[in-house]
Amino acid sequence: MFYTDNKLQYPVRVEKPDPLFARALQQAIGGVEGEIRVAMQYFFQACGARGNPKFRDLLMNTAAEELGHIEMLATAVAMNLEGAPLSLKEEVANDPVGGAVLGGINLKNLLSAGLSAMPVDSDGVPFDMSHIYASGNIAADMSANVTAESTGRILATRLYNMTNDPGMKDMLSYLIARDTMHQNQWMAALEELGGATGAFPIPNSFPQEQEKQEFSYAYLGFQQDGSAPAPGRWSEGQSIDGKGQFVSQPMQPLGPEPNLGPAKPNSGAQKEQL
Amino acid sequence: MFYTDNKLQYPVRVEKPDPLFARALQQAIGGVEGEIRVAMQYFFQACGARGNPKFRDLLMNTAAEELGHIEMLATAVAMNLEGAPLSLKEEVANDPVGGAVLGGINLKNLLSAGLSAMPVDSDGVPFDMSHIYASGNIAADMSANVTAESTGRILATRLYNMTNDPGMKDMLSYLIARDTMHQNQWMAALEELGGATGAFPIPNSFPQEQEKQEFSYAYLGFQQDGSAPAPGRWSEGQSIDGKGQFVSQPMQPLGPEPNLGPAKPNSGAQKEQL
Amino acid sequence: MFYTDNKLQYPVRVEKPDPLFARALQQAIGGVEGEIRVAMQYFFQACGARGNPKFRDLLMNTAAEELGHIEMLATAVAMNLEGAPLSLKEEVANDPVGGAVLGGINLKNLLSAGLSAMPVDSDGVPFDMSHIYASGNIAADMSANVTAESTGRILATRLYNMTNDPGMKDMLSYLIARDTMHQNQWMAALEELGGATGAFPIPNSFPQEQEKQEFSYAYLGFQQDGSAPAPGRWSEGQSIDGKGQFVSQPMQPLGPEPNLGPAKPNSGAQKEQL
Amino acid sequence: MFYTDNKLQYPVRVEKPDPLFARALQQAIGGVEGEIRVAMQYFFQACGARGNPKFRDLLMNTAAEELGHIEMLATAVAMNLEGAPLSLKEEVANDPVGGAVLGGINLKNLLSAGLSAMPVDSDGVPFDMSHIYASGNIAADMSANVTAESTGRILATRLYNMTNDPGMKDMLSYLIARDTMHQNQWMAALEELGGATGAFPIPNSFPQEQEKQEFSYAYLGFQQDGSAPAPGRWSEGQSIDGKGQFVSQPMQPLGPEPNLGPAKPNSGAQKEQL
Amino acid sequence: MFYTDNKLQYPVRVEKPDPLFARALQQAIGGVEGEIRVAMQYFFQACGARGNPKFRDLLMNTAAEELGHIEMLATAVAMNLEGAPLSLKEEVANDPVGGAVLGGINLKNLLSAGLSAMPVDSDGVPFDMSHIYASGNIAADMSANVTAESTGRILATRLYNMTNDPGMKDMLSYLIARDTMHQNQWMAALEELGGATGAFPIPNSFPQEQEKQEFSYAYLGFQQDGSAPAPGRWSEGQSIDGKGQFVSQPMQPLGPEPNLGPAKPNSGAQKEQL
Amino acid sequence: MFYTDNKLQYPVRVEKPDPLFARALQQAIGGVEGEIRVAMQYFFQACGARGNPKFRDLLMNTAAEELGHIEMLATAVAMNLEGAPLSLKEEVANDPVGGAVLGGINLKNLLSAGLSAMPVDSDGVPFDMSHIYASGNIAADMSANVTAESTGRILATRLYNMTNDPGMKDMLSYLIARDTMHQNQWMAALEELGGATGAFPIPNSFPQEQEKQEFSYAYLGFQQDGSAPAPGRWSEGQSIDGKGQFVSQPMQPLGPEPNLGPAKPNSGAQKEQL
Repeated sequence: MFYTDNKLQYPVRVEKPDPLFARALQQAIGGVEGEIRVAMQYFFQACGARGNPKFRDLLMNTAAEELGHIEMLATAVAMNLEGAPLSLKEEVANDPVGGAVLGGINLKNLLSAGLSAMPVDSDGVPFDMSHIYASGNIAADMSANVTAESTGRILATRLYNMTNDPGMKDMLSYLIARDTMHQNQWMAALEELGGATGAFPIPNSFPQEQEKQEFSYAYLGFQQDGSAPAPGRWSEGQSIDGKGQFVSQPMQPLGPEPNLGPAKPNSGAQKEQL
Repeated sequence: MFYTDNKLQYPVRVEKPDPLFARALQQAIGGVEGEIRVAMQYFFQACGARGNPKFRDLLMNTAAEELGHIEMLATAVAMNLEGAPLSLKEEVANDPVGGAVLGGINLKNLLSAGLSAMPVDSDGVPFDMSHIYASGNIAADMSANVTAESTGRILATRLYNMTNDPGMKDMLSYLIARDTMHQNQWMAALEELGGATGAFPIPNSFPQEQEKQEFSYAYLGFQQDGSAPAPGRWSEGQSIDGKGQFVSQPMQPLGPEPNLGPAKPNSGAQKEQL
Repeated sequence: MFYTDNKLQYPVRVEKPDPLFARALQQAIGGVEGEIRVAMQYFFQACGARGNPKFRDLLMNTAAEELGHIEMLATAVAMNLEGAPLSLKEEVANDPVGGAVLGGINLKNLLSAGLSAMPVDSDGVPFDMSHIYASGNIAADMSANVTAESTGRILATRLYNMTNDPGMKDMLSYLIARDTMHQNQWMAALEELGGATGAFPIPNSFPQEQEKQEFSYAYLGFQQDGSAPAPGRWSEGQSIDGKGQFVSQPMQPLGPEPNLGPAKPNSGAQKEQL
Repeated sequence: MFYTDNKLQYPVRVEKPDPLFARALQQAIGGVEGEIRVAMQYFFQACGARGNPKFRDLLMNTAAEELGHIEMLATAVAMNLEGAPLSLKEEVANDPVGGAVLGGINLKNLLSAGLSAMPVDSDGVPFDMSHIYASGNIAADMSANVTAESTGRILATRLYNMTNDPGMKDMLSYLIARDTMHQNQWMAALEELGGATGAFPIPNSFPQEQEKQEFSYAYLGFQQDGSAPAPGRWSEGQSIDGKGQFVSQPMQPLGPEPNLGPAKPNSGAQKEQL
Repeated sequence: MFYTDNKLQYPVRVEKPDPLFARALQQAIGGVEGEIRVAMQYFFQACGARGNPKFRDLLMNTAAEELGHIEMLATAVAMNLEGAPLSLKEEVANDPVGGAVLGGINLKNLLSAGLSAMPVDSDGVPFDMSHIYASGNIAADMSANVTAESTGRILATRLYNMTNDPGMKDMLSYLIARDTMHQNQWMAALEELGGATGAFPIPNSFPQEQEKQEFSYAYLGFQQDGSAPAPGRWSEGQSIDGKGQFVSQPMQPLGPEPNLGPAKPNSGAQKEQL
Repeated sequence: MFYTDNKLQYPVRVEKPDPLFARALQQAIGGVEGEIRVAMQYFFQACGARGNPKFRDLLMNTAAEELGHIEMLATAVAMNLEGAPLSLKEEVANDPVGGAVLGGINLKNLLSAGLSAMPVDSDGVPFDMSHIYASGNIAADMSANVTAESTGRILATRLYNMTNDPGMKDMLSYLIARDTMHQNQWMAALEELGGATGAFPIPNSFPQEQEKQEFSYAYLGFQQDGSAPAPGRWSEGQSIDGKGQFVSQPMQPLGPEPNLGPAKPNSGAQKEQL
């Protein structure tokens, strides 16, 4: 169950509204690496968590934090849209810079939302919830969360570099710090789950003797000329999960050319396929 | 540039066609954790790789492998659909089991594809390419790839547990082994990039003194009653990236209640908002 | 800013797990009339609210409530999936009823989520956030919310009629009651905003003398034979907004056949179009 | 069955083509509040209408009208795209205003449609038909239609305010007038269905004694500090549907912390979850 | 401008309602090869038609026909859903066949639409308007229409083969006949536009001397071993457009290994990429 | 099975990076007429090909070619994004042209991909795999492929006309030539399958006596005034498939006004519908 106090988690100040930056900030709300994604991902992972209940609490607690981040960014978008022109013609005619700004804003923020934030990315593409990864496997979920916070922090630093507004830089420096913590937090959870050698290969509940083990630690080459592929840590030494030795080798097709045979009558194929 | 030899990477045998299992296999083709996703993700990461060119080669080489996995699975789907009924009425009337099977297949595999595979998941939802994570940051990409191979291996083991067909189990044991390798491979690449202390927090090119550092390693609590959140490795000790100490504390709102003020004239709001 | 206490807003009991009902419940989570939609819709309307701040508080308060409804339903889905078969073959062979159940469940709940809820509808289609209506006009938003709670309550009553489980019926009777309240609540807000005569036509800030007023209260007929269209309250008497009189009349085309002329050179058209 | 006469319902004149305004007009075609949506929504509601057949006729008649509105807007988009530059370089180099215009147009209108309209919104996002609300409940459908015409009229007034072109203003003043009528028309239909006290809560066919009635007219508070939520018409007095009295109270969790227990073997979870 | 007479274009009879067939029919409404697609495709092609106005008339006339087909199929879906069970438990317990039927229906048709048709495919995936191909090139549009009617007729014959209901077979035999006509109609339009030698390669307005002509009629081989690809009409003889001679040859890479160099500072890459 | 040699199929040169042209090129990667679409379409058609295996080889060979085209275009996008500004404020203030460019780029290419290509179209909309047409009918597939290459070539010529860069023009002249070949190639395959009279109407395996033949070659008129529709090759003479004679006639409704009757109890309708 959730509660609110109607206040902002961290101050949101905009010294000089910038409609173009509003558009860029939309990526941090509704982009696939944005805050809706992490809030909902942690929420659904929590709802489906089985096993030690402390992971449910950890996930739900952080979901609550991320909901507040959406709120901060949505407020920042609306404040940056203050001052956006509402009419096309004059602006373009009189002021190329204003025209560029107008040309660059996401028109839906004006047309559909009346100068407010929307759950869309910087191109106006709505967020779709297929990006909520909640696998039922706690280690895979932690790995997905490290990834989400990594792409989220990259985005936040790009936004930080893009703006000069001190208020926006301050807000982003807070979000970047939280991404630092969250990357570390999910890696810490992975460490509790056994780390590289205990948790991997994910899922660790499947008996490895049932996999085709001669391919489990082989770096296969798919070079057209049959040469060995680019070497690296992945082609020699002990595997990262500690359960095998990396080897490297070119691959040959092990199966024949497939042939599905003729089509069935009444299946809508051409006569020539029957 | 790509080449083909029209052969299968690994043999695909189906002893007893099972249209319901065909539907389940579709998840491994067009699900968000399926093979289209990894093939295209590694491909686009390769195309945008900057820095040491060996990562481009590593990624493109594995993209070629994954294309062959799609081909194997698409062949398996078509082979499992052999024997699916083409007519509704009789089956249901005469044979409840057949009726159940018919009720359970993805009708589009019949209606749109003529008993062949489609780039959709097990519910017939088409794959959408927003799931291709290629961030321009090589460490974040490697993390995304570990995640992709983890959810992919979970899916493959669930499919393995779902079927009794020896041919299908054999094919899946190959794919599971490759997922083992690929999890290890991307972790090995992350190790080359510095591992937990060198690569994190991602991106490692942003100066940490510019983030709001008092929040960088703090596990904040969002419990309604102000209590401390669930403790764990994430709430004490050195941070996983080696750059700070975890602390734990309840959070208070640091910002005020936001107030956007009145709406602008001509912005389509109600009079009461102006 | 949001908080949680990790508890459920209302008890969720399942006496006999029913995987098919789990699939139906998914509609109440990720359907276009489901709880993610209302939670996020009220949240975004709150974030963009301009004018009297009490509407922001009203919206954010109810958003917090709806987040708890998602949590309840996600828990109910996971509890109903307990007992779902993990393997296809035996079930179908031995037990047509079990086979029917297996054929009917949303396979992604098993394959992608490990028997947990997902942010998808009853066909496994992910929720997409374009359904978050937040127009920047408070009256239109209230109207959208009445609609959302109406379709939501219809869905909840259909689910109530579909199940025999006392625990599920109890949970749904709570959600239905809340939908009753929320329909009334948003209508009450609309009453505060002037009701039918004060708030309509929405937006009420556009000067009606600028619309083509001879068409503002005319029920136009588009019957092929030029006859009058079906009469009703909408074809005579004072208009509902109190600002005009309904009239009814067949429509004639007022514009000519459009002609865009030839295509531009270099625009990729055929030569015959130039 | 439908007919056409190839003529426009209302004249479409463009005095000075404006590619940027073409982009804005796309929102009125393919936006979620646009004309495709209402045309198809009324059409599908008509096709599924049960009960008094006059509602079917009313809906189908208005669907025919809206199809003509799409045609008008598509013509307006094509006329505004006349004069759009076909080449990038020179324009930007020589003419910042032209460059701004070019930067602002939806490139797909040129690249995919050859300077014609598309069924997409102002950001080039295709309309998706999940926005067609046709619930099988006639009152909910009427409420959805009031909402659709409200957001549609807001959009049309924003477009009216955005342009100076007399032809475009004239066309929009016609569409705004029709939105006025349609808002009133669907409210009139709702009045025929019993109005606030007769039609609500929707659906009115579900026995209210089966809902958990102590929550049916209670304005619950979800404030973190347990304080009462923002008061208003919704917190006291008779409910709008005339069937209860509004009360206001803070909410406590009525359910426990959920615990799904361990994961099932073979479900793809980690060993630690079993 | 469009008109209606509220009647059906062709009779729709269902002797024995079949909810499973209702689900299959949904593919013909909202599938990518369904009637919404052709209706809207011809409509948008008409709206953007430039050049000889008779093509606009042809397209708009057929768009009106297809709208009537959607209406027929939506009626057929609703009629087939009569008799679908509204409750899960009893049906499955008492009647495996009924259970299979229930397991097989698209639950949204019940839960969201109250036993009526929806603009979705047979898996409940909503139609999205990106499938409306209207290129601004009249020959490409005619080719797209031949394709649309081909996949549409394949679907209709599969549905015809799937059902035993005489009413449904009669309705489908009408739709199949119309698909026959429409395939021929669009090919006839293509013939008016010059046929294979006059219209191709599309667009015929681009000067062929500006294309890299040594590759214009070469069947290139991408076989891993450098062998020639599978021969056929496409590898020898005059090209179908009459403007060249087919030749066949293995392909070699003509470009180098690409190298994008280091990443830019401040672009969010890892230090190792700079 | 697929192989790569890490080289480019054709040289990609960019003399002067142009971020706006990068955005336009995205349409050729992730647009519905782009290279991902043809690569995956041919690939899935190959995987499901039944009948003469030479069509499988033809399709898979060309799929391999198209994968190389995606690689070329993705490289071109990244090269054109070199030099894109990373910060908003200064550019707009100092340089209207730069501002226009910045306003015009797809921000996701910077924010999500770090100045690299993405599988999205020129508006940042991700490609979705529902556009992969693979019908199980080889003739319909060939027709779909002619269409795909036609819209692809139109797009490529529009891009060619849009840029002045010699490197980009050279690359595009290669892609245009390949589209010429591929249009011819698929028409050649259609010729092998019997051409217009042998392959049509598609599917040619359905007995034409089972279609309602009086409508098979009739050009029906849906003009509101009952007049004949626009004449052409489609209204007289032998049909293109050689199996009938075109006739032209106005259409009358052959069915009655549909009436679905009252709604079922418990189906969530209003009382007035029961």
